[in-house]
Amino acid sequence: MQMDLNSDLGESFGAWRMGDDATMLGIVSSANVACGFHAGDPAGVLRTVRQAAALQVAVGAHVAYPDLAGFGRRNMDIESADLVAGVIYQIGALQGLAAAAGTAVRYVKPHGALYNTIAHDARQAQDVIAAIRAVDASLTLVALAGSPLIGWAQEAGLTVVAEAFADRAYTPGGALVSRREAGAVLHDTTLIADRMLRLVQDGTVEAIDGSTVRLRADSICVHGDSPGAVEIARRVRERLTQAGVAIAPFANAANVAALTPATP
Amino acid sequence: MQMDLNSDLGESFGAWRMGDDATMLGIVSSANVACGFHAGDPAGVLRTVRQAAALQVAVGAHVAYPDLAGFGRRNMDIESADLVAGVIYQIGALQGLAAAAGTAVRYVKPHGALYNTIAHDARQAQDVIAAIRAVDASLTLVALAGSPLIGWAQEAGLTVVAEAFADRAYTPGGALVSRREAGAVLHDTTLIADRMLRLVQDGTVEAIDGSTVRLRADSICVHGDSPGAVEIARRVRERLTQAGVAIAPFANAANVAALTPATP
Amino acid sequence: MQMDLNSDLGESFGAWRMGDDATMLGIVSSANVACGFHAGDPAGVLRTVRQAAALQVAVGAHVAYPDLAGFGRRNMDIESADLVAGVIYQIGALQGLAAAAGTAVRYVKPHGALYNTIAHDARQAQDVIAAIRAVDASLTLVALAGSPLIGWAQEAGLTVVAEAFADRAYTPGGALVSRREAGAVLHDTTLIADRMLRLVQDGTVEAIDGSTVRLRADSICVHGDSPGAVEIARRVRERLTQAGVAIAPFANAANVAALTPATP
Amino acid sequence: MQMDLNSDLGESFGAWRMGDDATMLGIVSSANVACGFHAGDPAGVLRTVRQAAALQVAVGAHVAYPDLAGFGRRNMDIESADLVAGVIYQIGALQGLAAAAGTAVRYVKPHGALYNTIAHDARQAQDVIAAIRAVDASLTLVALAGSPLIGWAQEAGLTVVAEAFADRAYTPGGALVSRREAGAVLHDTTLIADRMLRLVQDGTVEAIDGSTVRLRADSICVHGDSPGAVEIARRVRERLTQAGVAIAPFANAANVAALTPATP
Repeated sequence: MQMDLNSDLGESFGAWRMGDDATMLGIVSSANVACGFHAGDPAGVLRTVRQAAALQVAVGAHVAYPDLAGFGRRNMDIESADLVAGVIYQIGALQGLAAAAGTAVRYVKPHGALYNTIAHDARQAQDVIAAIRAVDASLTLVALAGSPLIGWAQEAGLTVVAEAFADRAYTPGGALVSRREAGAVLHDTTLIADRMLRLVQDGTVEAIDGSTVRLRADSICVHGDSPGAVEIARRVRERLTQAGVAIAPFANAANVAALTPATP
Repeated sequence: MQMDLNSDLGESFGAWRMGDDATMLGIVSSANVACGFHAGDPAGVLRTVRQAAALQVAVGAHVAYPDLAGFGRRNMDIESADLVAGVIYQIGALQGLAAAAGTAVRYVKPHGALYNTIAHDARQAQDVIAAIRAVDASLTLVALAGSPLIGWAQEAGLTVVAEAFADRAYTPGGALVSRREAGAVLHDTTLIADRMLRLVQDGTVEAIDGSTVRLRADSICVHGDSPGAVEIARRVRERLTQAGVAIAPFANAANVAALTPATP
Repeated sequence: MQMDLNSDLGESFGAWRMGDDATMLGIVSSANVACGFHAGDPAGVLRTVRQAAALQVAVGAHVAYPDLAGFGRRNMDIESADLVAGVIYQIGALQGLAAAAGTAVRYVKPHGALYNTIAHDARQAQDVIAAIRAVDASLTLVALAGSPLIGWAQEAGLTVVAEAFADRAYTPGGALVSRREAGAVLHDTTLIADRMLRLVQDGTVEAIDGSTVRLRADSICVHGDSPGAVEIARRVRERLTQAGVAIAPFANAANVAALTPATP
Repeated sequence: MQMDLNSDLGESFGAWRMGDDATMLGIVSSANVACGFHAGDPAGVLRTVRQAAALQVAVGAHVAYPDLAGFGRRNMDIESADLVAGVIYQIGALQGLAAAAGTAVRYVKPHGALYNTIAHDARQAQDVIAAIRAVDASLTLVALAGSPLIGWAQEAGLTVVAEAFADRAYTPGGALVSRREAGAVLHDTTLIADRMLRLVQDGTVEAIDGSTVRLRADSICVHGDSPGAVEIARRVRERLTQAGVAIAPFANAANVAALTPATP
């Protein structure tokens, strides 16, 4: 058995540091690397991509709305022409940096408000799908487990990976509990690690109401933006590996093959 | 006989228009396309690259300092790590957009202050050379005819193309007359067209002091940022083609082969 | 009788020109000057403000969302803390430049998507109102005639000026016809000038269905971003002045006094 | 006796934190607040200015080159029109935010590369001086002790405050030892505090060669960008106050009066 752990990296900008990329690259198997639109200056991104290459961590393009000041977290009423071209631009820029680092971009994971929007908004979802197909149709799209985006992308011929969030509670329907609700974010390191092992072994998590919900997850997202977050990530990795689950990028052949039939 | 005409394109940004790309793409054989650092938003650049692809105009990355407000015309004391990664980022971004348009980036031509600086500044020149080699060592570098940059880039293994400027006066030593001096910029359309034909046929131009100066030029830069500039470009093309000189991108096999022995 | 004509100015950015500020400043009595968030670099804005001062044109802060690439035309889900502080920042910056030019900021007119949003969105409207009050409660707010914003701002103690658009059609209810509908934008110079004279003299316009609609307008917005737009502005001014209507900033005492009772 | 302690604050940007403003505002008497060009988003700056107002810390405009990616640390060949207007813009923006916080901008301290450049470069120095005079000639300029800038600004009629750096070594001539040389930056908290007390009491510091150098300092710059830096600042304050030196903004009447005769 194996599972992918992914995390958002390369999010420093100029003189500002964010996260501890070097440490996280020793924990995860896939790095969602900022592409300059919400975070990430070229030199910092190149440094992160080189570290990822050295540790054989898969590199993904963490594409976002063009909004440094808002860290890509603000919804933006962006026209299709701008969204399509902006996503292509970001993927291409990261491909250039990845090539310079001796690796390659393997997947695309939208960031922040764009991630949330395209999970459900068909127009912007199709824009992102079109952008990926235009620049390299073999790139995998990482999408929210259970979201309509997964089906749209598969219909368009993209390989899609569904991800779960280690520190988030789920509704009985398999959706994320909104951050506005109590209990939406989990903090108990042991509990989180246990939940993720169960998810990998059984394909289920305990929903916020105590019921059991089936969840497909090809990758687990962990965070690295605080010491507490790093500790959670480390524990999830430990629990999985101790149980015999190898931590490895989703983008190897076996895993991708297994992906195709599992429609959410 | 053949000659390449190149021009700076894709320099609009958001709501702001600059130049007449559609017209210029009917005149030139190579398009130096802005990559977002001095000009060029993704959607506008994609539009330009698509038009270039349709007209079989070669696409080059017009890389620049990160300075939208200064249009890349201000010298900037940028560290090597930032310059190298910034150039890689820009080339990669344009490669992504070019791929989406069904074409490819064939060459790199630095813009504005970066162009002028690396013509003579060894440190920044080596940074740009390293960036090109890191992302794709087969990309051609377009450099100022007669500048030390040409030798540095060739020593590093890059293919280099020397360019002349249609509307600029030259010193007896083959350098550009500084814009601060009278007569530096030529405006007489017929004179300019005649000079360029002589340059192609004889490999010489008349210097500002009336002497004859030998100049190697594999490409001629024309401008498109005003109706007068477009008219000059058009006349240069007409004069050359009427004299039997084909206007074609430098980056075809014959021309590149011919390039190698000609060291400035 | 008198009427104010206002126009969006100072919208160049770096190497990119937009509009013909010098010409428009000879036509209008109030200049909505970009503050750097959607357009306007400091040097260009200072130039425009100096010209406005020389021609005794009133200066207003044309505040916007922070979105150069989108020219402030994209809706943005901006938090109150960012919107309030961003509007204060823009007003302050323009106040600094106005002081340097020997004039002062007299009013605030939000731009683009922010203008449209706060006409109806109470949360963002209150943010803008709070920002104006925080920096200088004596600044007038220019708002869309007939919009709820006018009442909200007046309740908060701000002086409000209602504006009409010279080249736009109105519904029988006094709202702007959406740009998506046919006939929303008027192009007939003579018709537009006639409509504006009637508006000033009778306080009415002919709605798109032929009915008569009463419209309060303390200022008329004209555009200057194309030769056709400049011509319309010029004709509106001519028609009004020939009919004995003085073109003067709304912000003189008499006009402001007259404003208070007229609640939309 | 009294002395001013100043520190660079408000340097967070969007999601990126820098420094511990709340702690530093309890230590210093003057806050050099970022104005958005090298750091500082409006909401973060407003927060810092409000805290400064609550603690009666004087607010200064920490103006910079327009270079977020480089944190204002890169030399930039900026034209006078852009530098003058850019400095006015920044001062005005901070004035707006300060007014909203119930305080006012009292002084201007250029940041980073601009600070270093105008200490010696007459053209850019005159641009900054002109900008300050244009927006508010009563604003004090904080300048490097011993630099030509002090004389230039005084000749232009500005009030100038000379500052020393707590953690930097000085040459026998009273200049800062270049950061490229060993021993340029001091780390011994006790030593630094002792040096600053001597500077206040005797007007001298021990130069890097062991000699005694006379140094005029109306303000001492301390840093807050790391826990170690905060500790140094705290100890300097303690040492001074324990010796009976009050920590207070330079910009009160007595201090400013004392300033006039002391020409460097």
